[in-house]
Amino acid sequence: MLNEKLNLLKEKNPLVHCITNYVTVNDCANVLIASGASPIMADDKKEVCDITSICSSLVINIGTLNESTIEAMYLSTKEAIKLKHKVVFDPVGVGASKLRNETALTFIQQFTFNVIKGNISEIKFLANVANSSRGVDACEEDKITEDNIHSVIKFAKEFAKKTKSIIVITGEKDIVCNEDIAYVIKNGHSMMSNVSGTGCMLSALIGAFIAANDNDLESCVAAVVMMGLSGEYAYEKLLELDGGSSTYKCLLIDFISKIDQAMLEKGAKIEVF
Amino acid sequence: MLNEKLNLLKEKNPLVHCITNYVTVNDCANVLIASGASPIMADDKKEVCDITSICSSLVINIGTLNESTIEAMYLSTKEAIKLKHKVVFDPVGVGASKLRNETALTFIQQFTFNVIKGNISEIKFLANVANSSRGVDACEEDKITEDNIHSVIKFAKEFAKKTKSIIVITGEKDIVCNEDIAYVIKNGHSMMSNVSGTGCMLSALIGAFIAANDNDLESCVAAVVMMGLSGEYAYEKLLELDGGSSTYKCLLIDFISKIDQAMLEKGAKIEVF
Amino acid sequence: MLNEKLNLLKEKNPLVHCITNYVTVNDCANVLIASGASPIMADDKKEVCDITSICSSLVINIGTLNESTIEAMYLSTKEAIKLKHKVVFDPVGVGASKLRNETALTFIQQFTFNVIKGNISEIKFLANVANSSRGVDACEEDKITEDNIHSVIKFAKEFAKKTKSIIVITGEKDIVCNEDIAYVIKNGHSMMSNVSGTGCMLSALIGAFIAANDNDLESCVAAVVMMGLSGEYAYEKLLELDGGSSTYKCLLIDFISKIDQAMLEKGAKIEVF
Repeated sequence: MLNEKLNLLKEKNPLVHCITNYVTVNDCANVLIASGASPIMADDKKEVCDITSICSSLVINIGTLNESTIEAMYLSTKEAIKLKHKVVFDPVGVGASKLRNETALTFIQQFTFNVIKGNISEIKFLANVANSSRGVDACEEDKITEDNIHSVIKFAKEFAKKTKSIIVITGEKDIVCNEDIAYVIKNGHSMMSNVSGTGCMLSALIGAFIAANDNDLESCVAAVVMMGLSGEYAYEKLLELDGGSSTYKCLLIDFISKIDQAMLEKGAKIEVF
Repeated sequence: MLNEKLNLLKEKNPLVHCITNYVTVNDCANVLIASGASPIMADDKKEVCDITSICSSLVINIGTLNESTIEAMYLSTKEAIKLKHKVVFDPVGVGASKLRNETALTFIQQFTFNVIKGNISEIKFLANVANSSRGVDACEEDKITEDNIHSVIKFAKEFAKKTKSIIVITGEKDIVCNEDIAYVIKNGHSMMSNVSGTGCMLSALIGAFIAANDNDLESCVAAVVMMGLSGEYAYEKLLELDGGSSTYKCLLIDFISKIDQAMLEKGAKIEVF
Repeated sequence: MLNEKLNLLKEKNPLVHCITNYVTVNDCANVLIASGASPIMADDKKEVCDITSICSSLVINIGTLNESTIEAMYLSTKEAIKLKHKVVFDPVGVGASKLRNETALTFIQQFTFNVIKGNISEIKFLANVANSSRGVDACEEDKITEDNIHSVIKFAKEFAKKTKSIIVITGEKDIVCNEDIAYVIKNGHSMMSNVSGTGCMLSALIGAFIAANDNDLESCVAAVVMMGLSGEYAYEKLLELDGGSSTYKCLLIDFISKIDQAMLEKGAKIEVF
């Protein structure tokens, strides 16, 4: 299942339009290239529809919102949906400000995204079952554990049903689901939280996989496994090199460029619910 | 003195709000995480007060000013001061344009910052004793030497008194002072000037240390020592790896994530005046 | 010819003003420092003329255009030309949106740049002989090959004559020409296309070389050789380290900081037409 997804991504080299934050934009661009896609970042309202129209997918990330890009995000999402292009929505830091809250809620009410991706606190906020926020990180009390995994899966499937979207919830375990099937993915390494932007990179990577493949659910699983697996390989190599958090980021993107179909299939740690 | 500062930073994991330039913003985010803090970057006037209110400190960096972020900087500084949150001001490149000059001077007249940090040319400009500028670097004729160190310390203490702020002046030797006490810190390596953004990273790191600790003066000393010491360790490892300026940046952030309390105390090169 | 160019760059340490995209801006800043120049990024219309006036050259890169920076680009280009400072124009992604097309075409009609740099698809678009675009990458059908190299050189010389600019066309082989002489440069490595921003970095590097040297044509050759040669050295070292695309970017900038005059002369692969 996963290796054909990566295969098509490398083969098709899809153009992915990102309207994203200026903090991690460079890493997102490099992750897209590393994966086999091509990035284009554009956020002025006068050009986003043109750019969206030549791309295969669109990734909307609200990490550093501002009034002018909100309008650009709106226009490009509308255009992408009109053209039946795929759209990923990453509500970074929703819960942290009225602007983010209103923007994110308006977007999910107004548009049907192919994928909505966030940490558990962000997704709970969107689903209106929580209103806490700790900036861009998940709250401690929201963490997914062995004990609550089944209730989180149930919640995620319901939110998938309500939004008609694939829901991707990141954390120590990642959940990818539609209203019927949930994949729980145990790839990844705790060191990933020592790097700014791993969540943004994953959203970009999801944009690459769904652009090149038909099955959005399995494409999201492939992207999540690939990101987590890179985190695992990167940690192994980090120990060899005796490096710190910046070397780890470098290695993380390195492995996105190095993981092949066989490594992906072999390394995947997936359970289906 | 220093190890308890780092201890509390790691323990409290404070949220730091940065309104900063888009050149080095990713490095600032990664330095904050590496140090034990959590970054949140937000600069739209409609959300900065919300973001400031959930954070423990605010870092204002004027490296790539624009009209809309100036207003956001103003609003968030006002909010932070109202909430008794700590605020660091880094007047990057002041002296280089009327916009920067007017903005920086207005800010230090209007607000009492916990910390004002710059290179010697920038601080002299703010104190109205110089009007030269070489972009974002210090002017050659301003350089701190053995010969002028005492007069620079006197100047810095006076400026600290006038602004009621801790003054941090970076250079070959760094000065951290209030109106009474000056610490001269000899950590660091000349290779640090081969990397874009070490000054911005230091401002972010100061924001992390003062967010987690009560004593602003000693917190600034801890941040300056940590940055300089990372520069020293990074240089040692750079020689082993036979790397260049980009590997050096990577190692610099690596050591921010690796330096522990013992290394910090042991490596500190501080004189008190 | 090349070593004196690099010599003067290191000696003069020119300030280079970049109005560039937020995707690769940090890499551009670091490449400038690595080469021996100093970067300053500023894009608010209220300060760009001040900044341009204290710099030796200006680099205009339209990678992430927006309405407000277009005006800043216009004002600073006008100021730079008035002050006889040198200006590089990099029409990133022209062909991909009406906004980019109109902006780029207006700029080259209105201003005489010292250097216009792009991939073959971008330059063809500007010269009005093509209207295809694949985002920020060159189209497959435009690629420079052994078969079409002479016709591409002829085209480039004509465009140089028409625009009174040095034309730099990047690709597997790079072309640097004025209306009379064309240099074809065979340095570089295919791995460079796995990194976001190598084109932007080259534009910045050209800005550094022309700021410090009189002969724009030879300065461009020096910049292109240096970038390509760094790509070659970086690839050799990448194999040793068994790294991926992010390590490669790091090594690429490393070698910009490490290549000296002798390496530059020795490694250059140039043919003159």
